[in-house]
Amino acid sequence: MKILLVNPNTTASMTATAAHAARLVAAHGTEVVAVTSSMGPVSIEGYYDEALAIPGLLMEIAAGERSGAQAAIISCFDDTGLDAARALANIPVIGICEAALAAASFIAQRITIVTTMERSRLPLEHLVHRYGMAGRTKVRAADIPVLSLEEPSSNARARLCQQMEMALRDDRAEAIVLGCAGMADLTADLRKEFGVPVIDGVAAAVKQAECLISLGLTTSKIGAYAPPIPKPYLGALASFAPEAMLA
Amino acid sequence: MKILLVNPNTTASMTATAAHAARLVAAHGTEVVAVTSSMGPVSIEGYYDEALAIPGLLMEIAAGERSGAQAAIISCFDDTGLDAARALANIPVIGICEAALAAASFIAQRITIVTTMERSRLPLEHLVHRYGMAGRTKVRAADIPVLSLEEPSSNARARLCQQMEMALRDDRAEAIVLGCAGMADLTADLRKEFGVPVIDGVAAAVKQAECLISLGLTTSKIGAYAPPIPKPYLGALASFAPEAMLA
Amino acid sequence: MKILLVNPNTTASMTATAAHAARLVAAHGTEVVAVTSSMGPVSIEGYYDEALAIPGLLMEIAAGERSGAQAAIISCFDDTGLDAARALANIPVIGICEAALAAASFIAQRITIVTTMERSRLPLEHLVHRYGMAGRTKVRAADIPVLSLEEPSSNARARLCQQMEMALRDDRAEAIVLGCAGMADLTADLRKEFGVPVIDGVAAAVKQAECLISLGLTTSKIGAYAPPIPKPYLGALASFAPEAMLA
Amino acid sequence: MKILLVNPNTTASMTATAAHAARLVAAHGTEVVAVTSSMGPVSIEGYYDEALAIPGLLMEIAAGERSGAQAAIISCFDDTGLDAARALANIPVIGICEAALAAASFIAQRITIVTTMERSRLPLEHLVHRYGMAGRTKVRAADIPVLSLEEPSSNARARLCQQMEMALRDDRAEAIVLGCAGMADLTADLRKEFGVPVIDGVAAAVKQAECLISLGLTTSKIGAYAPPIPKPYLGALASFAPEAMLA
Amino acid sequence: MKILLVNPNTTASMTATAAHAARLVAAHGTEVVAVTSSMGPVSIEGYYDEALAIPGLLMEIAAGERSGAQAAIISCFDDTGLDAARALANIPVIGICEAALAAASFIAQRITIVTTMERSRLPLEHLVHRYGMAGRTKVRAADIPVLSLEEPSSNARARLCQQMEMALRDDRAEAIVLGCAGMADLTADLRKEFGVPVIDGVAAAVKQAECLISLGLTTSKIGAYAPPIPKPYLGALASFAPEAMLA
Amino acid sequence: MKILLVNPNTTASMTATAAHAARLVAAHGTEVVAVTSSMGPVSIEGYYDEALAIPGLLMEIAAGERSGAQAAIISCFDDTGLDAARALANIPVIGICEAALAAASFIAQRITIVTTMERSRLPLEHLVHRYGMAGRTKVRAADIPVLSLEEPSSNARARLCQQMEMALRDDRAEAIVLGCAGMADLTADLRKEFGVPVIDGVAAAVKQAECLISLGLTTSKIGAYAPPIPKPYLGALASFAPEAMLA
Repeated sequence: MKILLVNPNTTASMTATAAHAARLVAAHGTEVVAVTSSMGPVSIEGYYDEALAIPGLLMEIAAGERSGAQAAIISCFDDTGLDAARALANIPVIGICEAALAAASFIAQRITIVTTMERSRLPLEHLVHRYGMAGRTKVRAADIPVLSLEEPSSNARARLCQQMEMALRDDRAEAIVLGCAGMADLTADLRKEFGVPVIDGVAAAVKQAECLISLGLTTSKIGAYAPPIPKPYLGALASFAPEAMLA
Repeated sequence: MKILLVNPNTTASMTATAAHAARLVAAHGTEVVAVTSSMGPVSIEGYYDEALAIPGLLMEIAAGERSGAQAAIISCFDDTGLDAARALANIPVIGICEAALAAASFIAQRITIVTTMERSRLPLEHLVHRYGMAGRTKVRAADIPVLSLEEPSSNARARLCQQMEMALRDDRAEAIVLGCAGMADLTADLRKEFGVPVIDGVAAAVKQAECLISLGLTTSKIGAYAPPIPKPYLGALASFAPEAMLA
Repeated sequence: MKILLVNPNTTASMTATAAHAARLVAAHGTEVVAVTSSMGPVSIEGYYDEALAIPGLLMEIAAGERSGAQAAIISCFDDTGLDAARALANIPVIGICEAALAAASFIAQRITIVTTMERSRLPLEHLVHRYGMAGRTKVRAADIPVLSLEEPSSNARARLCQQMEMALRDDRAEAIVLGCAGMADLTADLRKEFGVPVIDGVAAAVKQAECLISLGLTTSKIGAYAPPIPKPYLGALASFAPEAMLA
Repeated sequence: MKILLVNPNTTASMTATAAHAARLVAAHGTEVVAVTSSMGPVSIEGYYDEALAIPGLLMEIAAGERSGAQAAIISCFDDTGLDAARALANIPVIGICEAALAAASFIAQRITIVTTMERSRLPLEHLVHRYGMAGRTKVRAADIPVLSLEEPSSNARARLCQQMEMALRDDRAEAIVLGCAGMADLTADLRKEFGVPVIDGVAAAVKQAECLISLGLTTSKIGAYAPPIPKPYLGALASFAPEAMLA
Repeated sequence: MKILLVNPNTTASMTATAAHAARLVAAHGTEVVAVTSSMGPVSIEGYYDEALAIPGLLMEIAAGERSGAQAAIISCFDDTGLDAARALANIPVIGICEAALAAASFIAQRITIVTTMERSRLPLEHLVHRYGMAGRTKVRAADIPVLSLEEPSSNARARLCQQMEMALRDDRAEAIVLGCAGMADLTADLRKEFGVPVIDGVAAAVKQAECLISLGLTTSKIGAYAPPIPKPYLGALASFAPEAMLA
Repeated sequence: MKILLVNPNTTASMTATAAHAARLVAAHGTEVVAVTSSMGPVSIEGYYDEALAIPGLLMEIAAGERSGAQAAIISCFDDTGLDAARALANIPVIGICEAALAAASFIAQRITIVTTMERSRLPLEHLVHRYGMAGRTKVRAADIPVLSLEEPSSNARARLCQQMEMALRDDRAEAIVLGCAGMADLTADLRKEFGVPVIDGVAAAVKQAECLISLGLTTSKIGAYAPPIPKPYLGALASFAPEAMLA
């Protein structure tokens, strides 16, 4: 199997972190092709960054499908551009937030997501609601800038742990979901430290991608995800016209 | 007052239709500045078009704010890029779907939106849910391509009327919301024909914009809509870096 | 335009406070006719007062419509008798709670209402739910008797501020709605003090009334708000028979 | 036990119908005191009638409590004035809609209410929602004016049966609730004819009243139903001032 | 009337406690037949115990119906096996949790259940949701093993009182529901101590059973509760084959 | 990997059908151990059968875990005994309904489940609600007895197809979930015939089991699924005492 992992921000070191987490759980015979978006923000922190990360993401997904990928993963916890990607691609597309929540739903009734920044809480709460998990999932923010996760000197890990403690004590959380692709390499460590299930969305998405490929399932094209209608796209985005992207 | 009306698709004739509807209801002394996005799809039909229409929209909103607009209206019924625009702009930003539903909520308990294409139903149902109107609002599609609304020879109006009849009979609708900016010029006519409130989002949004300006209210910047954090944007979208856009 | 503002309690000084707030935001050319109910409680604090305030309110709305008002505002934050008034009147009728929440919905995702008395919290929570804002709105009570808002010596303002602080810190509120018509004159001051959007329902309702009048919209009469059926009314309330009220 | 049954409309023959149904199921030793409101509409059909029926209802409930009633029933299916009555009275107060739904909830998963007039559907749907039954309850209207239920020549019964048939076939209803106090005398007959549980709210409310009295339970007075605060009531409603009513 | 009270755990002393509470409120002429399950766990603490208590419960309900009981009560607060019992029996079956919540719904808007063990909170929250009370009901656990309620030396009562205090102060509870059949004998005492309505499900269920019997209502057999289809049951549970149980 | 597939009904031929579907999608190196419950109903059709199938299921899950299974699948679409099994087992336990819905959620917005019998619709609707899919999932019944799926002469397939057609036309379904383990062998055929995603829960559950094993995730034991407390179990179910089962 060949799975495309797209980091929709433009920071290659975050792609490497996610790719590493992805390859750790990939089945024997699964190839994970990890790519970094070539246009847009260096990190996605809030609605504005998210919107501007979508064109670059879509470009990589279209290219990946042309190159033979059988499924695509969007490696940012706000599931950047998921609906547009599903409408565009013929291969299944998976967000790491939805994959993490799906995995959590099989092993715990109450879940807490710990994400990076306060401004990401409301967007994630909307995702949680959309995925039908609002009655059992809380979202917490550790007040960590996304890129600080890569700096060993930052106290990002300590803040994350503090929120996990509060989740277990105050939210009655039975499992923790790490709310940023950049946290993927902390998973094993945090499981050991806290003794509860800790879920990373990148790894979960790789397994969901393998699952859908094995089951022969791909996005239904008869409703909300019908293929884009061919039409002119003007100006700087002309190259995104559906017939060009799908060619 | 100076209100910016942005058509997020790139078809100038649709901008003209919306601008006409906007100016019909604008208060004496309100200037409506109507602009057409310069990049992206010629019409917005589904998730993919919507995502690619956002950069052009954001460009116009930033430019409009710099030119002194006191509020901005997004003139497409899927409220394209509303969250990103609110995070970016300091002036209030209003979607025509939310404005139409707010107006409807004051005059009817049960509402039906009649939109253009089947593929837009699910995105609009998500908007309806987000705006807290899911318990009282149905969405119907008349199976009309957006740009056909501008062709007199099409049977777009007939199909729209057919869905309105079904809404009144089968949905117990007490008011009808027209689910596309391109339908704005049919409002008066359809009210007369059906004898029920018919609401166009463009007109409703102009009045909401005046309302917010008069009340001295603008988007709260302390939570989900905190201003984008300055950071590099790479590649073809480098000019969208927050510090450039907000300059 | 001529807008009727009805204070459904019988305290004229509260009418004056609301009328002042209304006229501050009314458009040039809008006349605000403010009236005080002539029967019922001197303040509305809970379900019992509310029910007994409705007949006086309805009397004023019917009289106002006969005198040429084009829209009516119910100037009490529990939106006293809103459904009955909408069924009775041909002009649109607006509650100050719903108007405040509609305005807030355009500028903030999370909202806290600060009202007067604990016993009003549950009725307001029901309103919030009805208006589709339950997922994003909290209600707090400052433990202030309604009429104490008019006494400079009371510590009403201090208690209100205390709840606003807690709303911003604990509820993640992005905007504050003042939950009593009697608080209208504090709006500007509190905005300055807290640096966040503070919304008064009286002012918001005036702008919504202008909005509906401009759009040519009034209450739909084909469903829940069909006109009352002519029939005898007996005893002390005989004069409320629909044919008499609508005459 | 002594149970007060208040008909909040002013038609004595409807009181008699309800009283008969009540006494058929009352326990040995339970006295049902049935009274007709002395002021307001002769029938309650929609929001306006409902609001004007409340003062007369409250008068009777206060009088009944003074005369030793241990519980009160509001004998109109829109549960007229229920919240105000609960705040006023020290004895428990029961609406026939809520009592019917409570009984139905113990014997069926899916329920359909068949009421009289189309304009009552939305108010009843709001009640159903409030009582937590929205996920399992449908409301149908048989298009019958309330008082026509008393005219043998009307085709009210035929229309009611037609809606019951549709409920069983199309709504997957497992039990039927009769949505008007005036239908109480049809219950036994309809059960026999349709072979499914048919529930009349008047009878159900009598048993709930006995239940609460036996359990020694009455309305909690520490929250939403705290007693009205003594204060002046002006004009034609001066006699409703709390201290007068509770005296 | 003859009402069957089944304790689905196998501890006879708990049956005695519940039977005592039941007989205290039973109407003159109502016989309460209390039985203890003969197979399964000695107390029900969590999902596993609950599942294994169902066969013994069903056996007693079938036997009770054959012996002439007109209604059955399941005397454990997780409403053990309620759906299976309703499908099996022709007589109405009532859970003590649903009965307690129904009673509470008539006298309070906000309710807190205080149950025994933390692990029972989530199952009870699911019940509360199913019964349509999720918007107004909280569940607290006092961290008391079920059988310790019978030991005078335990501090079970003190822990229960502590949670009741928190419920009144922090949950805005207006009434308290005791979340275990073993707490039934504390009801009168706690009412006096706290001065708020305190509801025991066993007593409430007895009155609901009388209510349904008086109204001539029993479980609808046309939908979810259609009688089990005759078919072989194998192995140790062969005697539970529907035709054997219903014989 | 070693995955246990338990058929909770006692019909070995249905186990064979499910085992075949499971092995078709199992990864290279995954062993599927399929077992048939040794006690209880020969098919599960409604609440009563379901309750009596649980002890046999739990026995097999405990035995499977002792024999080294790393995950367990409950191969009946009502997710029989899922909560009890999760509390009992240390290995993850997956229901085929939840697995099918999780897979569907990644590839379609609107889903229809087609199950066997009318009486199973409400139980499945409760499951759909619990899994957070109620807003996007419909349940249909084809009126097929479970065991007739195994008889080539029955018209079971024709009835199933008829419901699938209605789902696509009337429910706006974008994907179909087969609502019975006995339908597993029809999946490939129906996909080809209808040209839309058709999902079988058995296959989906196998992939989810592999996913959880690969991710090193198992049921959280700190909340609702805490291990059963050791205690005596009496009578015919004495062997189910937790300490015996977990030994």
